[in-house]
Amino acid sequence: MGNNMLIGQSGGPTAAINASLSGAIRAAMSCGKIGHIYGTKSGIEGVLKNNIIELAPYLKSEMDFRLLEHTPAMALGSCRFKLPDWKQDDSLYVQIAKTFDDYDIGYFFYIGGNDSMDTVRKLNDYFLSHDKEVRVIGIPKTIDNDLNCTDHTPGFGSAAKYVATSMLEISRDSSVYDLPSVTIVEIMGRNAGWLTASAVLARQAGGSAPHLLYLPEVAFDVDQFVSDVSALTKTVRNVVVAVSEGVRLADGSYAAEAYQSNAVDVFGHKYLSGIGRYLEQVVRERIGCKVRSVELNVMQRCAVHISSKTDLQEAREIGRVAVQLALAGESGVVPVMERVSNHPYLISYTSRKVEEIANYEKKVPKKWITPEGNDVTEDMVEYLRPLIVGEAAQFTKNGLPIYFSFEG
Amino acid sequence: MGNNMLIGQSGGPTAAINASLSGAIRAAMSCGKIGHIYGTKSGIEGVLKNNIIELAPYLKSEMDFRLLEHTPAMALGSCRFKLPDWKQDDSLYVQIAKTFDDYDIGYFFYIGGNDSMDTVRKLNDYFLSHDKEVRVIGIPKTIDNDLNCTDHTPGFGSAAKYVATSMLEISRDSSVYDLPSVTIVEIMGRNAGWLTASAVLARQAGGSAPHLLYLPEVAFDVDQFVSDVSALTKTVRNVVVAVSEGVRLADGSYAAEAYQSNAVDVFGHKYLSGIGRYLEQVVRERIGCKVRSVELNVMQRCAVHISSKTDLQEAREIGRVAVQLALAGESGVVPVMERVSNHPYLISYTSRKVEEIANYEKKVPKKWITPEGNDVTEDMVEYLRPLIVGEAAQFTKNGLPIYFSFEG
Repeated sequence: MGNNMLIGQSGGPTAAINASLSGAIRAAMSCGKIGHIYGTKSGIEGVLKNNIIELAPYLKSEMDFRLLEHTPAMALGSCRFKLPDWKQDDSLYVQIAKTFDDYDIGYFFYIGGNDSMDTVRKLNDYFLSHDKEVRVIGIPKTIDNDLNCTDHTPGFGSAAKYVATSMLEISRDSSVYDLPSVTIVEIMGRNAGWLTASAVLARQAGGSAPHLLYLPEVAFDVDQFVSDVSALTKTVRNVVVAVSEGVRLADGSYAAEAYQSNAVDVFGHKYLSGIGRYLEQVVRERIGCKVRSVELNVMQRCAVHISSKTDLQEAREIGRVAVQLALAGESGVVPVMERVSNHPYLISYTSRKVEEIANYEKKVPKKWITPEGNDVTEDMVEYLRPLIVGEAAQFTKNGLPIYFSFEG
Repeated sequence: MGNNMLIGQSGGPTAAINASLSGAIRAAMSCGKIGHIYGTKSGIEGVLKNNIIELAPYLKSEMDFRLLEHTPAMALGSCRFKLPDWKQDDSLYVQIAKTFDDYDIGYFFYIGGNDSMDTVRKLNDYFLSHDKEVRVIGIPKTIDNDLNCTDHTPGFGSAAKYVATSMLEISRDSSVYDLPSVTIVEIMGRNAGWLTASAVLARQAGGSAPHLLYLPEVAFDVDQFVSDVSALTKTVRNVVVAVSEGVRLADGSYAAEAYQSNAVDVFGHKYLSGIGRYLEQVVRERIGCKVRSVELNVMQRCAVHISSKTDLQEAREIGRVAVQLALAGESGVVPVMERVSNHPYLISYTSRKVEEIANYEKKVPKKWITPEGNDVTEDMVEYLRPLIVGEAAQFTKNGLPIYFSFEG
């Protein structure tokens, strides 16, 4: 088998995905069993375009690694590329295998979400079926926290910390005037409500906001929403609502659909945005009080300046475990986290077959949502609490963050 | 004259307004010449409603002050209340004077923007005309940086730091895919482009984003915008645009007007939002590449977790200077900042008559905008650079910020 390794990043950005990249490179450099460490620019697309670079020249000091770990989005670039079924058309696989041969690749690591794990599964399956020994390992990341078989996913904790902190700040901002108001905060999460649920952590700081949380796991009804908000305005001066971008009506259609473009990504997902703005108009028309909507937008996945120290540490660690799995002869697996205990918070690392993870979406369990469907339970809070703990280091110059780059 | 002081906050939230409150209280407590220190809840409305509290019991330790200085929005609450002309109707003034007598108020401090300075001006004028010795001092704050007679305004530096940092993060986020894209970031600033201009600071970190900046000081033309963006897409893969919420057409109407509610605040300002979303649609239809808009929304004024240390220090200092001015017998004045030098950055504090500040808006000078009207000059960068320097302390518990409260 090949002596070198190749690593790539795929899917949407997170604050922690470069920490996993760093963790894997650190482990590969120190193990003494791997030759050259290559990175593919723009994920699997970079392999197809032969856009591959050697990483060691960019990582010469501990400071280089630390900057990489505190740089948002993908330092190696990303793609959203779905490999075809190789049994139908193996031309791309032949090309990939050729490139792997050219670079003498024995280990391939791919950091991504459940769509990216589909690439890991197919590549591993192809190599196995063609007696080609390449150890293919997926490294999980997603702000959505919707990966199967793992207690949680690197990237989620930092996004949750951003959401909870912003909830606190927005809640203070919305309560300065002695006037009734409603503030609607729209949070990412196409199909799973984990990140919207994390807004609840703001209550730990003593306040009562957010007062209502709407997750995609519960059928959304705009009349019930108006009724919920109206009831609250009787006792709460400044109502703060957390709503997932992906809430759906009982018929399964996205509540925000009327406001959407018809753009669909290569995995068939609809591009969503707009439920917050829509509900703002509903409140204005049907309740009539001061109302504002806030879309946390991409900041919730790229605000490395407020990332969770716990998350970055776990992201780095899971990158290290991925390399260990490969060195131990595993392939077609994904390192995952199991929660050993909450007090103290303790995680153990293990692995699962990529088939159990690829293309699945882990939803918020119904038992962690209140019967009214507009809040989450104490068990959910208990689950979320440790994931945002700790403030990551800040590296700044002239008041601005310093980022790592593989360019130039 | 009265022996006690009263302080209030007014207008829109900033990250630094509580630092000015703290600075004034610190100075009043240590001067030995002021008796009780009262705060009015919700600004001048709190005086009219007799919603006044003594502040010392809440501020017992250095840590209490520090938490107050790092708490977003107004710890005392705010209002947007325009006092009538007392020569037309003095009933509210009579009521305010009575309340000041009841509390033996000799010093009144009001922290706010140019609208709030109108309250300072009118109250001072009324007291002077009625031989009532109350020293009335305005303390400037605004994220808009549009106050006359001062080099810059407390609150602006922190907002600028948030904008520049977010620009960097969003720019990284927008460049992960190997695809042409346009990202439009909408920034606050109803009539003045200071905050939008501060996005330019992101370039200091080495990148070229933002590539275009549109300020309200230059007439906006959507065809020119499309032409600017189209030209850039020839050479730049991921174009990032900073646009002020308040950009206007040549006829003076807000470019985003079609998307606005007709709500108007008590000072006659139109409520604005939506130019970013509008331009997103324009790019999609007329250029046809991947496009996203991001509204920084209230986070740019309340994200204390990324506030500028320089800004918080100056905000506290200007609160202290306000108390010194009052003790020196001044009234109807506002402490302001003069820039002594840029290298090293040095500020001196002086004062100006409130008449020179109330109701004026300081625009970005035309000479600091490029002839093309879509960028700012190096002089603007030089002006902005020192204002975002330094990271404010973070006080956290369980991964979330700890805030100060005058409640309970």
